[in-house]
Amino acid sequence: MSKNYSDLNLIVRSLLPENQETPISFLPEDHLQTDLFFRRNHFTYPSLTNSSYWLPIVGAVHTPILFSFKDLVQMPSHTVKVVLECAGNKRNLFKPKVFGEQWEKGALSMGRWKGVSLKTLLNVTGLKHDATEVVAEGYDYGNRTDIDHTFSYMRSLPIEKALHPDTIIAYAYNDKPIPFKHGFPLRLIVPQWYAMASVKWIKQIRIINKKFHGPFQSIDYVYYPQKESDAGAYPVTYNRVNSIIQQPLNREVLDTGLHIIKGIAWTGKGTISKVELSVDHGETWIRAVIDRPYNANYEWINWSYEWEISKKGEYTLMAKATDSFNRTQPPEAMWNRKGYGYNAIDTVVIKIE
Amino acid sequence: MSKNYSDLNLIVRSLLPENQETPISFLPEDHLQTDLFFRRNHFTYPSLTNSSYWLPIVGAVHTPILFSFKDLVQMPSHTVKVVLECAGNKRNLFKPKVFGEQWEKGALSMGRWKGVSLKTLLNVTGLKHDATEVVAEGYDYGNRTDIDHTFSYMRSLPIEKALHPDTIIAYAYNDKPIPFKHGFPLRLIVPQWYAMASVKWIKQIRIINKKFHGPFQSIDYVYYPQKESDAGAYPVTYNRVNSIIQQPLNREVLDTGLHIIKGIAWTGKGTISKVELSVDHGETWIRAVIDRPYNANYEWINWSYEWEISKKGEYTLMAKATDSFNRTQPPEAMWNRKGYGYNAIDTVVIKIE
Repeated sequence: MSKNYSDLNLIVRSLLPENQETPISFLPEDHLQTDLFFRRNHFTYPSLTNSSYWLPIVGAVHTPILFSFKDLVQMPSHTVKVVLECAGNKRNLFKPKVFGEQWEKGALSMGRWKGVSLKTLLNVTGLKHDATEVVAEGYDYGNRTDIDHTFSYMRSLPIEKALHPDTIIAYAYNDKPIPFKHGFPLRLIVPQWYAMASVKWIKQIRIINKKFHGPFQSIDYVYYPQKESDAGAYPVTYNRVNSIIQQPLNREVLDTGLHIIKGIAWTGKGTISKVELSVDHGETWIRAVIDRPYNANYEWINWSYEWEISKKGEYTLMAKATDSFNRTQPPEAMWNRKGYGYNAIDTVVIKIE
Repeated sequence: MSKNYSDLNLIVRSLLPENQETPISFLPEDHLQTDLFFRRNHFTYPSLTNSSYWLPIVGAVHTPILFSFKDLVQMPSHTVKVVLECAGNKRNLFKPKVFGEQWEKGALSMGRWKGVSLKTLLNVTGLKHDATEVVAEGYDYGNRTDIDHTFSYMRSLPIEKALHPDTIIAYAYNDKPIPFKHGFPLRLIVPQWYAMASVKWIKQIRIINKKFHGPFQSIDYVYYPQKESDAGAYPVTYNRVNSIIQQPLNREVLDTGLHIIKGIAWTGKGTISKVELSVDHGETWIRAVIDRPYNANYEWINWSYEWEISKKGEYTLMAKATDSFNRTQPPEAMWNRKGYGYNAIDTVVIKIE
């Protein structure tokens, strides 16, 4: 019996700004998300009224340059297939609960971005010797609740990450122009980092020689381990090693017999080296079969396990991914006040009857 | 700024069978749900291949009759605007957790059903004096996990409820033919009862003179107060008094100033007499303003309250509806093993900064 994917929808978390989640448990394998790409906005969508579009690269460069869209398309292109995960993905799972969008497991996408390496552009402008950070500004802007001021969405990258050839100014997504809601016409794509770094609707790239302190850099997207103080705070950067059990669903009731347990796993630095499964609440662990893609660098991998079960009862299923740096999903996520980077061992409870 | 309702979608809970939830927090007021009508199926969708469609009424009647669709449309029509709420709505909120579809608050719809009173049809067939129950069978069927057998979806109604003039065999929804996924061409509509009673794709109506014992009557849709035994079990029938805070959203962060708290409330028997709100975790209660529709018998009502708040901090907002039989939402829902009838005081936690 074939599943009816045409009835798959994004899950609305808020409308204004628009925040919608991918129905990740139901995503077909090897699906490149365009329609089902999660939407995460800080502000209402920007109005881009100019028919001509220019990208200024300014600041600590030898030659500030305005690149036209056509300039970019005519330069050597670079394509990366990447997981983009919202830093707040799985926020809903934190205990104690935290404020913010209550994302479940679907603030996550994978797709193919084509563009020009930011490094290629910076080679054209030249970099001053004291350049330390690259600030990308989006066309989206608005008010914050915590500061009485209007801000553009701006994020900074250390110069080393900005110069990595896989950090690109993208103009295409899955072989088409980038959908408006995902950053048309140009989006910065920063593989391995949580998706707040991949600034949409780029308005300007500024190279700076000091530390950047915008609110989306130094207030949001910071891990605050304490509820009442900022002690021990540090910035959100690379994705943590993580996984999702897509099937079976949490609290599903199943028959005895053969079941396919399946899901995905991904990480920031490195690649996934193994996914372990438990069907007895973590008492014992077995290796899942990994269906490794050709180039898994920035992709999630699909994993599965055939489970034959004849004994009726309740079962707690757990998935635990480990990456090539030997980082493993922890039994409990590191709680932090703004709810970023949840990556505890993924768990579903089912009943066999 | 207008909200973009075209990006509102159903929330997928499962695909096979298809169970999808209404994004209830975002539903425009006075919206008659067609696209956003939740979908709850026990089995895959039935195949209705006959171009001609007949409804047999058989069993303890004087004259068994096959009604054609045309017969029904030519009889006196009756329209009811009703809330249909899945008995498992809000199941996700039970603590301890229970098995089954993890509905949040949106297994709920309101719309206008037009058809023929079942009573009108039973007046034509005549009822034998010993008739006690009316069994509606749908065209949908399939396997269960708990019994090794194929079943049609069948539900029984006591004869008194079946003879209420507002219990109808509907052939239209919101002035159009019933959408296939909601029971085309004919659906039994039972106002005031949880929606398991409103059988879709009606295949047959059978009048019986004893107690009906199908699995959807005597296994499912039964309140089991005990986890391990069936002691104290009793059937799910009328909707419980209930409400939802649609705005603000749970865990939302808001500015100081004026906020509209709003939501809906509904009940089974009777009508909503008041909705009370608390912004201090239930310490004190205030009356919400009720926007009462012309005929609120089977409808939900919209309520709202203007909340001026200047003090920053965390707030627990609660909504508590009371109906004309003086039933009130309890502080805690009555836990039951299959997770039906959740109607605890609705609660959201927000932060003002």
